[in-house]
Amino acid sequence: MTSSRNDCLALDAADPLAPLRAQFDLPPGVIYLDGNSLGARPIASLKRAQEVIAAEWGQGLIRSWNDADWFALPRTLGDALAPIIGAGKGEVVVTDTTSSNLFKVMAAALDAQRARAPKRKIVVSERSNFPTDLYIVQGLTRLLDDGYSLRLIDSPEELPNALGDDVAVVLLTHVNYRTGAMYDMTARTAEIHAAGALAVWDLCHSAGAVPVDLNGAGADYAVGCTYKYLNGGPGAPAFVWVNKRHQDTFWQPLSGWWGHRTPFAMTPEYTPDDGIGRYLCGTQPIVSLSLVQCGLDIFAQTSMQALRRKSLALTDLFIRLVEERCAEFPLTLVTPREHAARGSQVSFEHPEGFAVVQALIARGVIGDYREPRIMRFGMTPLYTSFADVWDSVEILRDVLSTGSWDKPEFRRRGAVT
Amino acid sequence: MTSSRNDCLALDAADPLAPLRAQFDLPPGVIYLDGNSLGARPIASLKRAQEVIAAEWGQGLIRSWNDADWFALPRTLGDALAPIIGAGKGEVVVTDTTSSNLFKVMAAALDAQRARAPKRKIVVSERSNFPTDLYIVQGLTRLLDDGYSLRLIDSPEELPNALGDDVAVVLLTHVNYRTGAMYDMTARTAEIHAAGALAVWDLCHSAGAVPVDLNGAGADYAVGCTYKYLNGGPGAPAFVWVNKRHQDTFWQPLSGWWGHRTPFAMTPEYTPDDGIGRYLCGTQPIVSLSLVQCGLDIFAQTSMQALRRKSLALTDLFIRLVEERCAEFPLTLVTPREHAARGSQVSFEHPEGFAVVQALIARGVIGDYREPRIMRFGMTPLYTSFADVWDSVEILRDVLSTGSWDKPEFRRRGAVT
Repeated sequence: MTSSRNDCLALDAADPLAPLRAQFDLPPGVIYLDGNSLGARPIASLKRAQEVIAAEWGQGLIRSWNDADWFALPRTLGDALAPIIGAGKGEVVVTDTTSSNLFKVMAAALDAQRARAPKRKIVVSERSNFPTDLYIVQGLTRLLDDGYSLRLIDSPEELPNALGDDVAVVLLTHVNYRTGAMYDMTARTAEIHAAGALAVWDLCHSAGAVPVDLNGAGADYAVGCTYKYLNGGPGAPAFVWVNKRHQDTFWQPLSGWWGHRTPFAMTPEYTPDDGIGRYLCGTQPIVSLSLVQCGLDIFAQTSMQALRRKSLALTDLFIRLVEERCAEFPLTLVTPREHAARGSQVSFEHPEGFAVVQALIARGVIGDYREPRIMRFGMTPLYTSFADVWDSVEILRDVLSTGSWDKPEFRRRGAVT
Repeated sequence: MTSSRNDCLALDAADPLAPLRAQFDLPPGVIYLDGNSLGARPIASLKRAQEVIAAEWGQGLIRSWNDADWFALPRTLGDALAPIIGAGKGEVVVTDTTSSNLFKVMAAALDAQRARAPKRKIVVSERSNFPTDLYIVQGLTRLLDDGYSLRLIDSPEELPNALGDDVAVVLLTHVNYRTGAMYDMTARTAEIHAAGALAVWDLCHSAGAVPVDLNGAGADYAVGCTYKYLNGGPGAPAFVWVNKRHQDTFWQPLSGWWGHRTPFAMTPEYTPDDGIGRYLCGTQPIVSLSLVQCGLDIFAQTSMQALRRKSLALTDLFIRLVEERCAEFPLTLVTPREHAARGSQVSFEHPEGFAVVQALIARGVIGDYREPRIMRFGMTPLYTSFADVWDSVEILRDVLSTGSWDKPEFRRRGAVT
């Protein structure tokens, strides 16, 4: 039983993943528990950016679309990302934002259903889903009009009852951004398919955080971001995966020239590329896109299984230490205790969660806050240590026991929190 | 009359814009006439990228969304870009790709017409428009179904006849990517409005290339890219402008969380931000986005009027020298001679245009090729010199007179050209 800082140091000394931390640039004096929001910076990213900017852009100029393989980047990065989410080569592209990729796959899923089951016009999702997912569906269904609409369930338990014969698509986020609760992707996908609907998974809080097996689960479509656990850089382009069985019939309305079969033939009629090319739309931000590789390179040195083992050890330890050492404070665990239902973050409710998080940040422990009352602590086994867990709980205990969070500057809401 | 290289050097010596060239990193031995495809690299971009990556991302981490104003970037860059296109503050955002921004404004324009003139369901555009514009409209009209469709005209002269009472929106590219021909935006917008339609302008080959006055022309919507004449970097995020009269009723289906009035309230219902915030969708690629400022900073040191004077002098000279010094070769000017109808590029047809362009590139003169038979030469007055014009024509003359283009390696088509 880990019950001292020294015990944690011993765990770190024995941790086979511990050396990977040296590949990240972590600021001194900071315990970073927000990799679930923005991943830390791979040290290699600076040199890579210099190459892309000075050599490829500056010297190569327009020639770099060919010579530096810029045009191929969405596909080469997709192939590098694929094993992390249980996808195969030629199944993933890295491009655009999660929101626009979700628009593409939702439109494609509804289009597929229109062909085979035209009366299915309902999209089912969860009220507690990350809002942009719901907003995108609202935008799409309003555009489509004609009876399309969004049906929200209040908890995963309501899913079976929501799956009527009017449901076209179910959109679920694999790991909930607020609670860290994780769906059983295989079981839920089977349930969705049995009801005649298609399954779209948002992997924003899963990719690089937990093992994902899209093909094993038989999922239909997935999207996710690269700037959280995958450490691709702030706002780095997102990814989209489509099951091979849908690739050649996949149709999406953001049919820009990058998705054309022969973009440089400059024909006035859109003809989608064979396979995954058709998920692309417009010209991609090459500098940001190139840096995604630096994050993926670190994943290539380990396995999602090894990362998962450490992630569970970190979150188990964090939960236990908070519950033991901060027992007298009004903290409520909202993350599932059951391993199979937990992502790689721990969330606690506290009535003054916002101010407590600000006070923690002022002390160098960076977690974040989500309405209402939720303090989130992301464990990113590539660079979070067991000593980080110990130290962050000690600082949390200090902030709570001294009441140092109870100051005007910690209660003031900024533009972005 | 400029008739020697020395005359050109004298023009450069007298050119008030000539010192701006020193702010770009141009490769030695290259005459770069492809800024209409990918702008050259502002020297400041490397240092800026280092700050964003090492300091803002690496050290600031998640805090930089507030502390480094990442969240505000689409708006602050939009305000910096606005004067270049005749827009006001609070009217432009820099975000996403041209293709997705076009999807947003086309959907918004059709939505606006649905409310006031529901029988108008036709989008008019030009067959010779940049293909992604047509592809995006095809994607949108297929999604909408219900009688919406795209009507293509074969030349600008056909526009009046195409403007029936079934037309909802006219989508024109201000400067044609292939020929460099420029529309009279004010006159055409008035014509479109008189016919009861809305005017959407694609400024990809105009922004930073020619003076644009969106508000003066009374246009409705505009999109454009930042990676050509604005020198924002490869695939840098694009921009979108909406006339103030449409701002508060603007509705678009890519309604991601960045367009929400209170994105961090995390409510399940989408409520669009007041004004331009609603043109946003998802999280932006911050590294690429940040570099856009470096290009705009150079524009702030001059005016579009000064740039236009030099641009016309450069294109006039290029046309005259090619026609005088390469008169015996089968070159046909496709760019208008009339100043008011010319952008900032010169295009010549040549039966073997593809191979000639490859031979020029091998000689260090970087122009590009567009099907069919068109050789494009972009003049970017921020860094193109009169001596560049002289030298490039001399090399063209040499390539044509020696027939050095007639080699297998110059005839071979690559993946991207």
